[in-house]
Amino acid sequence: MKLVSYRRDGKPGFGAVKEQGIVDLSARLPQIADLASLVADNLALDEARRLVSAATEDFALTQVELEPVIPRPNKIICVGINYVAHAAEAGRTVGKYPVIFHRYAETLLPHGAPLVRPTVSDNFDFEAELAVVIGRGGAHIAPGDAMSHVAGYTCFNDASVRDWQFHTHQYGMGKNFRGTGALGPWLVTADEIPDYRELAIHGLLNGERLQTGQLSELAFDIPSLISYVSQALDWQPGDILATGTPSGIGFKRQPPIFLKPGDTFEVVIPGVGTLSNPVADEA
Amino acid sequence: MKLVSYRRDGKPGFGAVKEQGIVDLSARLPQIADLASLVADNLALDEARRLVSAATEDFALTQVELEPVIPRPNKIICVGINYVAHAAEAGRTVGKYPVIFHRYAETLLPHGAPLVRPTVSDNFDFEAELAVVIGRGGAHIAPGDAMSHVAGYTCFNDASVRDWQFHTHQYGMGKNFRGTGALGPWLVTADEIPDYRELAIHGLLNGERLQTGQLSELAFDIPSLISYVSQALDWQPGDILATGTPSGIGFKRQPPIFLKPGDTFEVVIPGVGTLSNPVADEA
Repeated sequence: MKLVSYRRDGKPGFGAVKEQGIVDLSARLPQIADLASLVADNLALDEARRLVSAATEDFALTQVELEPVIPRPNKIICVGINYVAHAAEAGRTVGKYPVIFHRYAETLLPHGAPLVRPTVSDNFDFEAELAVVIGRGGAHIAPGDAMSHVAGYTCFNDASVRDWQFHTHQYGMGKNFRGTGALGPWLVTADEIPDYRELAIHGLLNGERLQTGQLSELAFDIPSLISYVSQALDWQPGDILATGTPSGIGFKRQPPIFLKPGDTFEVVIPGVGTLSNPVADEA
Repeated sequence: MKLVSYRRDGKPGFGAVKEQGIVDLSARLPQIADLASLVADNLALDEARRLVSAATEDFALTQVELEPVIPRPNKIICVGINYVAHAAEAGRTVGKYPVIFHRYAETLLPHGAPLVRPTVSDNFDFEAELAVVIGRGGAHIAPGDAMSHVAGYTCFNDASVRDWQFHTHQYGMGKNFRGTGALGPWLVTADEIPDYRELAIHGLLNGERLQTGQLSELAFDIPSLISYVSQALDWQPGDILATGTPSGIGFKRQPPIFLKPGDTFEVVIPGVGTLSNPVADEA
């Protein structure tokens, strides 16, 4: 299934995307509060699958306002320097532990919404990533059990304000500007991706492929990342793990390429989806 | 006023602390959802002051379960290396920009609750800090206007897992272990602190003063910090800004001092309060 969160006439809902639009699951499963609750509950997910296969679409995708898959994830955990070729372009090497940083949920935006180039910087860069959506929560998860906590996958653009990212030795603010974290268009449930390592990922600026990678290249694979974080924090349903970006970012090119109003950036993960966002200046 | 969030018989509430206990403001101001909403609203705060001065206490502090001042702040923004003497002990210098990192709300705990020494590390260290609670939200705030966005102050212990903090060049997980961010005991409203720079701060381990500083020593003062962050993110009511720790942390001592079960750590800020937490091992 392809699952989405949305607003329709201002009201929050969630559903599944089929050929002709959306099957409204929030109306059919009123006991389930939101998409994070649905993906935490395997019985409810099975019921959702049955409902979706029997139902016809309730409305077109254009009749809803998509939300960033999980509208307000409890946490978004980002991994840096997780493709060897990207580590090289960033002047880093892959070490013994994953590089972890954070993004606030309030910086997220859905498929289609403009990435916001900030007032205070024109060093606005793109980062195509595969994001994992956590289903069942847990602490101290062994790598061998980790994949059972994955609800599914979506595309992420960890758009970064490079000069602010390097104001100090901590990425801090540069990874946390308003309107810079695109997530979507939908969550593809894990049963449809037998092996995430076979996924390819591409980042396209105005149709030109600038980033490309294969999920098999991850220096720290998804089970290791889920396990590592779970030693410190409890994973909760709907939490997001952004697995890092492959090489080809704009900042390290000669000359650098930065996002500007009028551009469109796409994160393309065949089998998962295409996340497309225009760029606009901060109002 | 000294404002607290709490649970009583499992139900959330907020109120003001007087000599004999708590005046329940959630019952008297039913139109106000929570403490973050109260401190965002100057008219409601004035009404709360009138109510509190006329009321007798509804229950004793011991009759409630305190919450971490704002139970689920939208964001907690932490500042590193913000006292010159601490920068020196950490082998850093103060640069042109503040060092910003993040803490998840789920890691917070209230006054009195045990700081959790993790299973995976015994490098568990303390950091006494003054925390600012934001009242009125805003973006692109000029330093000259910043103090009008401050609802008040509280004590914070940014307890840190040092080996994990330095697993990589990003503080990442080491600042985000479960049960490690103590916040409280209450918010002292800004009108009671005419000049925060006159505040002293102390960190006491089992009654022995190990950290001490003066808020006038901050390399980046509170107006500068509020303004800097507001270029990237909108401040929202109840957001927390942790202003950094003075010198004297355990990790850099010879020999190092780490928190262990049976210890009690106190953050003492005369005029604001004393935040006291025992230490316990992760279950």
